[in-house]
Amino acid sequence: MALSVMDSPVFDAAFAHRLDLLLAWRRDVRRFRRDPVDEAVLRACLAAAHLAPSVGNSRPWRFVRVSDPSRREAVAASFAACNALAAGGYEGERAARYRSLKLAGLREAPVHLAVFCDRGTGAGLGLGRATMPETLDYSVVGAVQCLWLAARARGLGLGWVSILDPCRVTEILAVPPSWGLIAYLCLGLPQEEHSDPELERHGWQAEDRSGATLFER
Amino acid sequence: MALSVMDSPVFDAAFAHRLDLLLAWRRDVRRFRRDPVDEAVLRACLAAAHLAPSVGNSRPWRFVRVSDPSRREAVAASFAACNALAAGGYEGERAARYRSLKLAGLREAPVHLAVFCDRGTGAGLGLGRATMPETLDYSVVGAVQCLWLAARARGLGLGWVSILDPCRVTEILAVPPSWGLIAYLCLGLPQEEHSDPELERHGWQAEDRSGATLFER
Repeated sequence: MALSVMDSPVFDAAFAHRLDLLLAWRRDVRRFRRDPVDEAVLRACLAAAHLAPSVGNSRPWRFVRVSDPSRREAVAASFAACNALAAGGYEGERAARYRSLKLAGLREAPVHLAVFCDRGTGAGLGLGRATMPETLDYSVVGAVQCLWLAARARGLGLGWVSILDPCRVTEILAVPPSWGLIAYLCLGLPQEEHSDPELERHGWQAEDRSGATLFER
Repeated sequence: MALSVMDSPVFDAAFAHRLDLLLAWRRDVRRFRRDPVDEAVLRACLAAAHLAPSVGNSRPWRFVRVSDPSRREAVAASFAACNALAAGGYEGERAARYRSLKLAGLREAPVHLAVFCDRGTGAGLGLGRATMPETLDYSVVGAVQCLWLAARARGLGLGWVSILDPCRVTEILAVPPSWGLIAYLCLGLPQEEHSDPELERHGWQAEDRSGATLFER
């Protein structure tokens, strides 16, 4: 049931500071402990994802937990193939550095979540997406972001694996034809916690401030 | 400077609960007070956005504050045109209901932020997006989500306006050709605060639980 405006919470400066800390320590995790994830905690994270904004209130996200070993193996194989191909796109020392990076924790993470957008959903009756239909997919990204923060707030790490063939993953998971893959997530307890990006820490790139400028028009 | 793992913060159950409250009261805001937004608060929200995850740590988000009255007027005109067209897609009582909805606060919101993806960025050297290049755009959506939560935690409301012609908005704002529009945001103090979606409260749709299921594979 919706709460009335009288119940509106006040978020104080201490909470805002704590939220900034959460955002800084959110990070993409690829090094997982194998301990199982508590089912109630997973459900709480998914409930948080369901609070994400969505275009026309369409809630097009579809979360699929991938537990079947042969399906997980097939996803890991797609990663390995795509990653080898991507490595081939770099040369010399850069290629060697690419190959030295750990870019996914598919083998260790106790929970795999594939996240789809149901592009055929009737929810919201198409409101808000006639001119920018991509906002339906974007709504699913927002849900992933909420899940990520809710997980980190509960001590879990999440890694978004994008080095995959989305058609192959969709096929492996045998989902309805109107579902498009948005994200493939690894979830579990992290081996390490950091406030800096793994790619900077492992020498792929220098610290970058791209995007920090506010442009004026 | 990156903090070492020794400084890793602990987020307790009270914080996780408070975060869930923030997610629930985040909402899309279309009814703004005209009071200006404190510059330091705006900067804090943008700093939060900059902590978002991005594919290959590419940070492709580009935030543009739109203050020029003629540009703001032109964006509002694009909204009006697209909204009239969208209303024409519904019939009878549904069309009347559509027309009764307030779908943007462009005229009242003190701050307009256009958010672009720099699809030509070299940051991250293309890592992670060979097979799913759309993850570059998705990274910008994650930044919008972080901004949204940081704003709400500081008492501000944000509304995402998607009923726009993205080519027209890009033209109005005269941004570099490699920038693609992801979101157009209104920001300001909200007139009202709610924990339920405006579209449900105003009778566009019944409460919907689409997406709340966890599918198993």
